Amino acid sequence: MSEKIAYLGPTGTFCEEAARRYSRQPTTLVPYRSIESVFLAVHKGEAESGIVPIENSCEGAVNQTLDLLTSEYQVKISGDLILPVNHNIMLRPGVNTSDVTCVLSHPQALAQCHQYISNHLPQAAILEVASTAEAARQVALSAEPWAAIGNRGAAAAFGLDIGQAAINDIPNNKTRFIVLVREDSKEHVRTGKCKTSLLIYLADQPGSLFHVLQEFYVRNINLTKIESRPTRAKIGDYLFFIDIEGHRLEEHINESLQSLSSLCPAVRVLGSYPTAM
Amino acid sequence: MSEKIAYLGPTGTFCEEAARRYSRQPTTLVPYRSIESVFLAVHKGEAESGIVPIENSCEGAVNQTLDLLTSEYQVKISGDLILPVNHNIMLRPGVNTSDVTCVLSHPQALAQCHQYISNHLPQAAILEVASTAEAARQVALSAEPWAAIGNRGAAAAFGLDIGQAAINDIPNNKTRFIVLVREDSKEHVRTGKCKTSLLIYLADQPGSLFHVLQEFYVRNINLTKIESRPTRAKIGDYLFFIDIEGHRLEEHINESLQSLSSLCPAVRVLGSYPTAM
Repeated sequence: MSEKIAYLGPTGTFCEEAARRYSRQPTTLVPYRSIESVFLAVHKGEAESGIVPIENSCEGAVNQTLDLLTSEYQVKISGDLILPVNHNIMLRPGVNTSDVTCVLSHPQALAQCHQYISNHLPQAAILEVASTAEAARQVALSAEPWAAIGNRGAAAAFGLDIGQAAINDIPNNKTRFIVLVREDSKEHVRTGKCKTSLLIYLADQPGSLFHVLQEFYVRNINLTKIESRPTRAKIGDYLFFIDIEGHRLEEHINESLQSLSSLCPAVRVLGSYPTAM
Repeated sequence: MSEKIAYLGPTGTFCEEAARRYSRQPTTLVPYRSIESVFLAVHKGEAESGIVPIENSCEGAVNQTLDLLTSEYQVKISGDLILPVNHNIMLRPGVNTSDVTCVLSHPQALAQCHQYISNHLPQAAILEVASTAEAARQVALSAEPWAAIGNRGAAAAFGLDIGQAAINDIPNNKTRFIVLVREDSKEHVRTGKCKTSLLIYLADQPGSLFHVLQEFYVRNINLTKIESRPTRAKIGDYLFFIDIEGHRLEEHINESLQSLSSLCPAVRVLGSYPTAM
């Protein structure tokens, strides 16, 4: 039986493209209908791994993915990859951009094409759907002059024409995807360039973030990312997603994690993996 | 002529409620159709001040507001206020929740009621519109069995019934709004409890965030918030929104800002103001 990789579907999404690039051996790519269902498939062991988007160079974090990383699902990050993202206006054959009454896409894709929509489709309603491919599917099925925003793969999959290519506001648009697995492998290959993703709850006292960063600084550990999310308890309470260079099994990283566990109410290692950047 | 306050409209939004609480003297509250148009009204001097949401205790940052604070619009933050946010299902009289084919609301409101929608309206399509009040307006006008999600004010304004009250996933849901003005007043009242909002671009070198936080730590300056946003240049390039306790005209705050300006490529003071929390 070949390895199974769950991804945010349906077929034709950028996430499927990421899954295809990630899989080297013979694998079965299985589309799931939400980011949460990909987490669940990995958690339950239905799939050996899962691919979901985590951040975009224009829009920032994919909050749903961050929030699911704080959940009780047993998943670890085992890798990441970065893909260029070019969005297109996709129409049924015969429909003109000027006649479009409704634009459908995933919220992040809509946000990434905000300027284009304001300038070229000011008359159109905006319909948020679960994925760029789902948008293409609905446009293909509808009798209305609707348009979908998404990648070329989706246009091909659903028989749509490209009305206008590369409409994203920022041309150098990229998305980072993470690979989810059930267990952080102990025998993980420690290449020269690894990254460790952490989830850190800070003590509610002055200087607490400073003290966390100090543990990394004194050991020459470089931060590649820091992202805050609300704890949902009250405004002003945050937790932090921090990526550092190095593998959790390296001595200086391990030492810093030991120190953090006495400084912070909770520190969760989300995974150590070869870095894409 | 009374002072004019621009807010994210239309009438019936939470933002109007925030504007009403903020205005003490006789003022004219003027709805604008987007967060950007509120910024523009203040920038051009069409309105003396503007009110927009900046973060929610469940959903986190309002990215559009953060991104506009990095823009060329000449606006400063002169205050903030926190409002409880309770969402309701709103229907035309005679429509039942079980018949609803489409749920309309602002993306953040939809996100805040994600669990409720999954459990009680799994059959309904999701339609993202510009505001909770706009959702109520469209539901009131439509002949279809649609539902809007928003505050009681909107139901009253558009003659809708409350199908179910307080449907937000997290009961203690609050939104923080900021007050925008054109110029940071030099004579700003320095109360005991002020806050200063900063926008900081970090140097691309190890330890740069640590050194920024150190400038605050050595002066006993407390951080109340830190939020990263992509610079839109490439993945891994971030800028930071940092709120600290204290007024920019206080000596220790001023000193820390002087030090930061030699450490960082750019530091922008977004405003010093009496704090809401």
